[in-house]
Amino acid sequence: MARYEKAHCIEDFRRIAQSSLPKMVFDFIDGGSGMEATLRENRAALDRVKLVASAPVNVATRDQSVTLFGQTYAMPLIIGPTGLVSVAWPQGELVLARAAGKAGIPYVMSTAASATMEDVARAGDGRKWFQLYAFRDREISKAMVRKAASLDFEVIEIAVDNPIPGTRLRDSRNGFSIPFKWTPGKLWNVATRPGWLWRMMRNGAPKMELLSEAFGLQEAPTIAAVLQKQLDPGVDWDYIRELRDLWPRAFVVKGMLDPSHVEAAVASGVDGVVISNHGGRQLDGAASSIEMLPEFVAAAAGRLTMLIDSGFRTGTDIVKALALGAHSVQVGRPTLFAAASGGQPAVERALAVLRNEIDIAQALLGAAAISDLNPSHVRFR
Amino acid sequence: MARYEKAHCIEDFRRIAQSSLPKMVFDFIDGGSGMEATLRENRAALDRVKLVASAPVNVATRDQSVTLFGQTYAMPLIIGPTGLVSVAWPQGELVLARAAGKAGIPYVMSTAASATMEDVARAGDGRKWFQLYAFRDREISKAMVRKAASLDFEVIEIAVDNPIPGTRLRDSRNGFSIPFKWTPGKLWNVATRPGWLWRMMRNGAPKMELLSEAFGLQEAPTIAAVLQKQLDPGVDWDYIRELRDLWPRAFVVKGMLDPSHVEAAVASGVDGVVISNHGGRQLDGAASSIEMLPEFVAAAAGRLTMLIDSGFRTGTDIVKALALGAHSVQVGRPTLFAAASGGQPAVERALAVLRNEIDIAQALLGAAAISDLNPSHVRFR
Amino acid sequence: MARYEKAHCIEDFRRIAQSSLPKMVFDFIDGGSGMEATLRENRAALDRVKLVASAPVNVATRDQSVTLFGQTYAMPLIIGPTGLVSVAWPQGELVLARAAGKAGIPYVMSTAASATMEDVARAGDGRKWFQLYAFRDREISKAMVRKAASLDFEVIEIAVDNPIPGTRLRDSRNGFSIPFKWTPGKLWNVATRPGWLWRMMRNGAPKMELLSEAFGLQEAPTIAAVLQKQLDPGVDWDYIRELRDLWPRAFVVKGMLDPSHVEAAVASGVDGVVISNHGGRQLDGAASSIEMLPEFVAAAAGRLTMLIDSGFRTGTDIVKALALGAHSVQVGRPTLFAAASGGQPAVERALAVLRNEIDIAQALLGAAAISDLNPSHVRFR
Amino acid sequence: MARYEKAHCIEDFRRIAQSSLPKMVFDFIDGGSGMEATLRENRAALDRVKLVASAPVNVATRDQSVTLFGQTYAMPLIIGPTGLVSVAWPQGELVLARAAGKAGIPYVMSTAASATMEDVARAGDGRKWFQLYAFRDREISKAMVRKAASLDFEVIEIAVDNPIPGTRLRDSRNGFSIPFKWTPGKLWNVATRPGWLWRMMRNGAPKMELLSEAFGLQEAPTIAAVLQKQLDPGVDWDYIRELRDLWPRAFVVKGMLDPSHVEAAVASGVDGVVISNHGGRQLDGAASSIEMLPEFVAAAAGRLTMLIDSGFRTGTDIVKALALGAHSVQVGRPTLFAAASGGQPAVERALAVLRNEIDIAQALLGAAAISDLNPSHVRFR
Ligand SMILES: Cc1cc2nc3c(=O)[nH]c(=O)nc-3n(C[C@H](O)[C@H](O)[C@H](O)COP(=O)(O)O)c2cc1C
Ligand SMILES: Cc1cc2nc3c(=O)[nH]c(=O)nc-3n(C[C@H](O)[C@H](O)[C@H](O)COP(=O)(O)O)c2cc1C
Ligand SMILES: Cc1cc2nc3c(=O)[nH]c(=O)nc-3n(C[C@H](O)[C@H](O)[C@H](O)COP(=O)(O)O)c2cc1C
Ligand SMILES: Cc1cc2nc3c(=O)[nH]c(=O)nc-3n(C[C@H](O)[C@H](O)[C@H](O)COP(=O)(O)O)c2cc1C
Repeated sequence: MARYEKAHCIEDFRRIAQSSLPKMVFDFIDGGSGMEATLRENRAALDRVKLVASAPVNVATRDQSVTLFGQTYAMPLIIGPTGLVSVAWPQGELVLARAAGKAGIPYVMSTAASATMEDVARAGDGRKWFQLYAFRDREISKAMVRKAASLDFEVIEIAVDNPIPGTRLRDSRNGFSIPFKWTPGKLWNVATRPGWLWRMMRNGAPKMELLSEAFGLQEAPTIAAVLQKQLDPGVDWDYIRELRDLWPRAFVVKGMLDPSHVEAAVASGVDGVVISNHGGRQLDGAASSIEMLPEFVAAAAGRLTMLIDSGFRTGTDIVKALALGAHSVQVGRPTLFAAASGGQPAVERALAVLRNEIDIAQALLGAAAISDLNPSHVRFR
Repeated sequence: MARYEKAHCIEDFRRIAQSSLPKMVFDFIDGGSGMEATLRENRAALDRVKLVASAPVNVATRDQSVTLFGQTYAMPLIIGPTGLVSVAWPQGELVLARAAGKAGIPYVMSTAASATMEDVARAGDGRKWFQLYAFRDREISKAMVRKAASLDFEVIEIAVDNPIPGTRLRDSRNGFSIPFKWTPGKLWNVATRPGWLWRMMRNGAPKMELLSEAFGLQEAPTIAAVLQKQLDPGVDWDYIRELRDLWPRAFVVKGMLDPSHVEAAVASGVDGVVISNHGGRQLDGAASSIEMLPEFVAAAAGRLTMLIDSGFRTGTDIVKALALGAHSVQVGRPTLFAAASGGQPAVERALAVLRNEIDIAQALLGAAAISDLNPSHVRFR
Repeated sequence: MARYEKAHCIEDFRRIAQSSLPKMVFDFIDGGSGMEATLRENRAALDRVKLVASAPVNVATRDQSVTLFGQTYAMPLIIGPTGLVSVAWPQGELVLARAAGKAGIPYVMSTAASATMEDVARAGDGRKWFQLYAFRDREISKAMVRKAASLDFEVIEIAVDNPIPGTRLRDSRNGFSIPFKWTPGKLWNVATRPGWLWRMMRNGAPKMELLSEAFGLQEAPTIAAVLQKQLDPGVDWDYIRELRDLWPRAFVVKGMLDPSHVEAAVASGVDGVVISNHGGRQLDGAASSIEMLPEFVAAAAGRLTMLIDSGFRTGTDIVKALALGAHSVQVGRPTLFAAASGGQPAVERALAVLRNEIDIAQALLGAAAISDLNPSHVRFR
Repeated sequence: MARYEKAHCIEDFRRIAQSSLPKMVFDFIDGGSGMEATLRENRAALDRVKLVASAPVNVATRDQSVTLFGQTYAMPLIIGPTGLVSVAWPQGELVLARAAGKAGIPYVMSTAASATMEDVARAGDGRKWFQLYAFRDREISKAMVRKAASLDFEVIEIAVDNPIPGTRLRDSRNGFSIPFKWTPGKLWNVATRPGWLWRMMRNGAPKMELLSEAFGLQEAPTIAAVLQKQLDPGVDWDYIRELRDLWPRAFVVKGMLDPSHVEAAVASGVDGVVISNHGGRQLDGAASSIEMLPEFVAAAAGRLTMLIDSGFRTGTDIVKALALGAHSVQVGRPTLFAAASGGQPAVERALAVLRNEIDIAQALLGAAAISDLNPSHVRFR
C-alpha cells in the first residue's frame, strides 16, 4: 500500500510530501514570504470563522456542482496555478490537469509551468484555464493570450500580485536560489530523498517550458532570471483592459486584496477576481483573503464572479468562503503536496478527500445545494 | 484503593480512562471530527464566559433541583446519549442508567446503545429518556417511538445533527473503522490494556443491541453498516412533526445550532431543544453551543425548554450555561470517562464530583436556587 | 548572601519560595481553585491593560502616599489577610506585621491567623487592620469585632467570598487536606526541604491561634474543621449591617465582584470594598477584579473607598488599578512568597522592590502624586 | 564568508549578535524593562496591523525617498539614538554614522554615546541628528545644544521618556550594573566570546565620551553614575521651550506616547515627535507606539512631523506605520545587532536588507511613492 493511500486529509498529504521531497524543495512549496505572518494568519483567520449548522434540513439529495462563467463544474474547487510543478513530481502539470479533469474541476496552468501549453491543453479531458503573467514586452503577453485562445483554454487569470517577487527566507537560507548552485548541504538534502532523486534523474530536471519557448531560451537558470526581469511591475487597469479585449472568453484578475478596486475591475470588463494573498508568498503582513471577502462581495454586488484562495485546506474552509459569498475556491499547495506524495493517483485521492469533506460539511450545515450556503451559516467576529 | 477514587475532577477521570482503554477506544470516545477545531473551541468558548460572583448573598440553604417537562430532578445535569457504551465498560448503558438513577438525574439512552430498551428501562430506578435516530425506513423509527412509549421512557430526543457521519480522523488513523479488522498495531494496542481486554472477553464484544433487534441483524459490523446506511439525511420539520404526533410525552430536538429554526421548532410542537455541536464530533468548524445559546434564548422567549451540551466538564461550565438561560446541561464524554475508569461506582463518584462543583459554584456565585442564576452573573465578550 | 537578596521582583521571590517550601505547602499558597482559569485570567487581564506614559511631565518630586479612611500610608499597598502564615515562616503574621509597619503600610490580620490578636496588635509599630470571617454563631463574630476594637485595629474587612471553601485541586492531589495524614510522598516532600523542616521543628507546628481561642480548641485539625463548619454561608447585608454597627471605625467588605451590590453596600454604612476574586482561590471561572473595577467605580461615584486585590505582582500592575480608580491595592501571595524566602528581611526587601517599582511606574507615567493617576493613563480593550 | 553575509533579515542579525556578544552585553541590548510585557506587545501590536495589498497599480518606478524637515532622505528609516554603541563593536557610533551616511539616512547620536560629538560629526558624509538628555544642571544641556548647532547637527531630539531609568531585570540578574564588578560568571561569559574580547582589548573599554567631557570625568563607572544622577526628572514643556528657543533648526521630542500632549508640543514650537516606548525599555506595561499612532495623527492634524520607533524589524513593519500616518521610522536594536555581527559592512548590509524589504512591501502594496501609503492600506482591529 502506497503511503498516500493512508492520507485522510490534506495535512496528511503535507506530511508525506515533507518526507518525500528534499528539504529545500519542500520549503519552496510550503514556505511563505518574510516572517510568514500572512502564512499563519491565513490559517488563523479561517479558524475565526465559525459555522452554524442548520439542522434539521432535508439534505438527502446533495449537489456540489457550481456554474462558473457558463460552465458547470463538479464541485466548488479549482486547482490554482503553480509554477514548476515537475519539481514535485515528473510532468507535474499534466498530472494535475488529468486529475482535475477526472474530478470535473478546472485546472489553471501557470505561465511558469514546466510544461508546454500544447501538452497541458491535451492532458486529460477537463477544462483548462490559463494564468498569465504580464511581461514588460507586451507582445509576448499578447502572443500567450492568443495561443491560449487557440488552444481552447476557457478562462484567463491574470496574476497581478507579483509585480516583483516576494522575499522567501526559507529559500534564501536553503540556498534554493536562481541560478542554482550545489553545496554539500544541498547534496545531502537530495541524497536523503532517493525516490525523488531517481524520479528526477529519469525524467530530467524541471524547466519552465512555456517561458523557455516564449523567450527562446534553453538554460533553466536563465529562464528563471528572465522571468524575474521580464515580469512587468507596471501592470495597471489600462494594460489589463488591453489584454482583456484580446481575449474571447472569461477574464479573471488573480491576486486582488483591496476591495476599493472593484469598480475599476468592473469598468475594465473583467468577469471575475481571485481574492488572494498568493498563499502568504508575496506581501508578508497582508490580511487574509477570507477577511477581505465580505468587503468584496458587498462592493461587487453580484457584478463579478468571486474566486478566492490562500490557506484553504479542508472542506469546511471551503464552505466558509462559499457561505460568505465566494463562488469557488482555488488551492495551490494542497494538490502540490498530493502530487509529491505519489503522482496522479495521489492527486485524485486528495481531490476525493476534499470532495468528501465538502459533501459532509454541506450536509451537516444543512445546505443541499452549494447555492443554499449563505452568510447566516457563519459567525465571523 | 481503586484509581478512580483519586479522581477529583472530570479531567482526572479522563486521564484514568486514557490509561485504561486501548488507544483506539479512547480516541473513539475522546476525539472530534476533522481538525478538531470545534472540539478545541468548545473549551475556549466556555473559558471566555466569566462569572460575576455576587456575594454577599445568603446561600445557607441551597437547592440544586430543576424541573424539566414537569419532573423534578436532583440537579441540572443529564447523562446524554452515547452509543456503544459497553466498549468503555461491560453493560455500560446499564451502569450509566443506574448511576443516573441514584443521582436523581435523567439518563438518555441512545439508538446506538449496546443494550436493549427493555434492559435499560429496567436498570435502576431513575427516569429514562430515549434518543432517537430517524431512519430512512420510517416504520422502524415509528416502532421505536411506540416501544419507548410503552416502556415508559419519559422524553424523546430526536438527534438531527448527523444526517451523515462526521469525519473522525483519529478513528481513520487508528483503523477503528467498520467493518473492524485486526492489525498488529491494534493487537498491541489492546494487549497493553489487559484489564480492559479481560473485561471484554468475559462479557463478550459490545454490539448495538437495539439496532440489531430493529433491523433483525446479528453481526456487529453489519449493524454498524446498516446504521450508516439507514440514517435518514432527509429529516426535516415535517418528519419531526410526524414523529412528534406519535409520542405522548415531551419531545426534544437534539443537535440544533441555528437559532433561526426556533420558530419552526415551536410550530412543530416541540417542547425543548438540545443546543449542541455533538461534542465537536460532527461539523468541524462549527460554533460552540455556548456561543449560540443567547440567540436561542432570545428567539424562544420562554416557549422551549433549553438544554445544551458539548464541552461541559465542570460545575462552573454548567452554571455558565444556566446563567445564560439554559435549563439543564447534558454531558457525553465525562460519564464515559468515568465508566471506563471503574464502572458504576466511578460514575457515581463523577456525578458526585460534578454535583459538588455545581453546589460550590452556586454558593460562590450567590445563587441559592438554580433559578436565581441569570445573565447578570456572567460577562461574555 | 542570602538567596532572597538576589530577588529583583516578586516572581523571583516566588521561585525562591518554590525551592524553599515543601511542594504541598508551596502549592497551598500558590494554587487556585478548580482548573485555575481565574488564576490565569488574573494575570491575563492585567496584561490587557496598557499604560499611556504621559511624558513630559515634571516628576522631580514624587509622592507615593495615599490616605485611606483618614490615615496616610506610605504607599498604595496593603498586605492583605492570609491564614496560617506560619506555614511559610515561623511567626509569619508577626513577620508580615513588622515589615508592613516599617514600610508604613497596613497589615491585615486574618481570622485564620496562626497568631493571636494580641500578638499581632503588638507586632511592630504599623497600623493593623482585621479581616473577619462571619460565623454561624454570631456571638463569636461579635466578640471578635469587640476585641479588634479594644486592641486598636483600625479597619475591619469582612470577607464575604467564601460562604463555603473553593475546590483546591492541588491540595486534593497533594493530600494537603484537613485532617492531615502523613504518607511516604509527603514525608519525602518535606525531607527535601530541610531548612523549612528545621524551622518548623524549632517553632512548633503552625496552628490557627485565633480560632483556637475563639472556639476553645487545642488540636490543629479540629480547628480547621471548625473553621469549615462554622463559616456562615448565610451572610447578607443585614448581618453585615449588624456587625458594622458594632464597630467604631472604618468598615470594609472584602471579596466583592458584582457592581450591582454597590448601592446595598452604601446603604449598609460600609466605608469601602475590596474588589477581589480571592486570588483565584474561590470561584473558578470568575472574572478578574481589574475587569470589574471600572463598573464599581462608576456605580460608587466616590461614595466608597475602592480597594482591590487578586493577581497584582508589580508596580505597573498596581498603578493600572490606581489609574482605573482604585485607592489602594492588596496583595496576598507576594508577601507570603517573600516571607517563605527569608522571613522579615525578605519581606522588607519585597516591599522595597514594590515601592521602587511603583515609584518608577509613577515617574514614567508622568504622575508626580498618586492622585494624578487617572483613566487617561490607560487603554483597556 | 563572514557570518553576517548570510543574514537575510534583522532576526538573522539578532541571532548572530547573540552568538557574538557575551550574554550580559547581548541582554543589555536585547532586553526590556520589568516583565518585558511591552517588549512583547511591540511585536504583537505590529502583527495585528494587516496590510491590504492594492494591486494592480503601476509600480514600475518606485521612489522610497522622504522629506523630513526640508531635507530629502533616501528612505523612511532613521538610525535612532542608542548609548554606548562601542560595547557592540569598536567605535560603534562612527560605524553607524558612516553606514547611515552611505545609505542616505539620518544617524541620531545619543547623549550617552561612546564617541565625541566632533568625531561623530566628522564620521561619513551623512546628516547627523543629536539626541539630547536634559540635565538637572541646565547649563550643561544648553552647552550641548550650542555645540550640536556649531557642529552642524541637523535636528535635535530631546528624549523625555526617561526621567528616571527603567528596571532592567536581565541586567540585574546578569550583574550588568554600574559600577561594574567582575564575578566568575561574568568572566566565563566573556571568555566564551573571544572575538568580542579581542576587539574590546584592542580598542579599549567603551566609555561615555560625551558625558565624560561634559562633566569633566574620567572613570567609566562614575560617568554612568553621573548620568543617572544628573538626568532631570523635572522636564516639562517650559524647559523644552527654553531649549527649543536656543536651537536654530528642527526640534523633536522623543519618547511621547500620550496624544493629549500634542497641543502642548505644537504650542512649544516643537517640529516633530518620536512616538515611542523606548523599545520596551522604560515603562513596562506601556502601550505599543503603533497603537497610539492613529490618535497622534488625528490630534496633530498635520502640524507635527510624526516619527515613531519601538519594535520595528522589517520593511512591512515600517510601511504599516507609514500607512497609518508616520513620516519615518527609527530603529534602535536592529542596527546594533548588525554592528555586533560585523561592524560597518554588516550595518550596511542590514540597511540594504531593510531598504529592499521596504521596496518590496511598497511594490506589493501598490504604492509607487512613500506618500502614496495611506490608511486604506491597513486594517487595524
Ligand atoms: C509552489 C507555488 C508556486 C506558485 N506559482 C504560482 C504561479 O506561477 N502563478 C500564480 O499565479 N500563482 C502561483 N502560486 C500561488 C497560487 O496560485 C495560490 O495563489 C496560492 O498557492 C494559494 O494558497 P494555498 O497554497 O494556501 O492554497 C504558487 C504557489 C505555490 C505554493
Ligand atoms: C462516544 C460518543 C458516542 C456518542 N453517541 C451518540 C449517539 O449515539 N447519539 C447521540 O445523539 N449523540 C451521541 N453522542 C453525542 C453526545 O450525545 C453529546 O452530544 C456530546 O458528547 C456532548 O459533548 P461532550 O462529550 O463534550 O459532553 C456521542 C458522543 C460520544 C462522545
Ligand atoms: C495562602 C492564602 C491564604 C489566604 N487566607 C485568607 C484568609 O484567611 N482570609 C481572607 O480574607 N483571604 C485570604 N486569602 C486571600 C487574600 O486575602 C487575597 O484575596 C488574595 O491572596 C489576593 O490575590 P493574590 O494572592 O494574587 O495577591 C488567602 C490567600 C492565600 C494565597
Ligand atoms: C541598547 C540601547 C540603548 C539605548 N540608548 C538610548 C539613548 O541613549 N538615548 C535614547 O534616547 N534612546 C536610547 N535607546 C532607545 C532607542 O532610541 C529606541 O527608542 C528604541 O531602541 C526603539 O526600539 P527598537 O530597539 O525596538 O527599535 C536605547 C535603546 C537600546 C536598545
